[in-house]
Amino acid sequence: MIDLFTDDYFMEQALKEAKIAFEKGEIPVGAVVVVNKKIIARAHNQTETLQDVTAHAEILAITSAANYLGGKYLVDCTLYVTLEPCVMCAGALYWSQISRLVFAASDDKRGFRTHQINLHPKTEFNSGLMEEKAASLLKAFFYQKRNL
Amino acid sequence: MIDLFTDDYFMEQALKEAKIAFEKGEIPVGAVVVVNKKIIARAHNQTETLQDVTAHAEILAITSAANYLGGKYLVDCTLYVTLEPCVMCAGALYWSQISRLVFAASDDKRGFRTHQINLHPKTEFNSGLMEEKAASLLKAFFYQKRNL
Repeated sequence: MIDLFTDDYFMEQALKEAKIAFEKGEIPVGAVVVVNKKIIARAHNQTETLQDVTAHAEILAITSAANYLGGKYLVDCTLYVTLEPCVMCAGALYWSQISRLVFAASDDKRGFRTHQINLHPKTEFNSGLMEEKAASLLKAFFYQKRNL
Repeated sequence: MIDLFTDDYFMEQALKEAKIAFEKGEIPVGAVVVVNKKIIARAHNQTETLQDVTAHAEILAITSAANYLGGKYLVDCTLYVTLEPCVMCAGALYWSQISRLVFAASDDKRGFRTHQINLHPKTEFNSGLMEEKAASLLKAFFYQKRNL
């Protein structure tokens, strides 16, 4: 049997969220939280809409997933996010003890790897999945910002 | 004229918030955001109440202050917090470009200095104000947790 619910599938869902952010004039980053092949939270960056620097896709997704689960630890959960988490979001992921993180594009400036932030020992991570799609969307956004 | 609205005064207010957290069974950390000697946000740790790892006093205070100001950058604001901010909260403070951070007790394990996180270049910081009061409250909390 073909498994339709692959990492690719879930990253596509995160990209859908990023596109919603793009259309709202938000930096296009999207995220979904998955447990047992089921999406339990979807979120996109809302820092402009909410005028709140903490409203990154990952923070909103973590809060939403915990609310769904009724507990604050994201056991057996995977966060798919279209951009490498920043220091703040990596710090939040640490507290959540999430089981797995998959991100698409890298962020060499504010990404957690550049700042040598460790994820929680319980957290595996994979990077680079659909990197080009996610990065193109970000580039298009900043191009538009500079030129309009 | 005696200035009543000193750093001590505002840290006392943050300690009041920490005590509210203590009474709720939350790790006792409190914060206030001040602009022009006026408190525009008060918050305490609510990770248990909200079952949300992102609900640290600082994150709640940043969101609340931005809401009050109607803008996401905490220009001319000071955050007083009873414990050294963690990686997540230091990351949030970075994005907020807050002008000043004052914290009481140090956190050698999860505090931002141990993890070598830089604050925003626009952010000054002072540490150790009322350190003993803040640390005693935390010690009493963890003692109670272990022994009850």
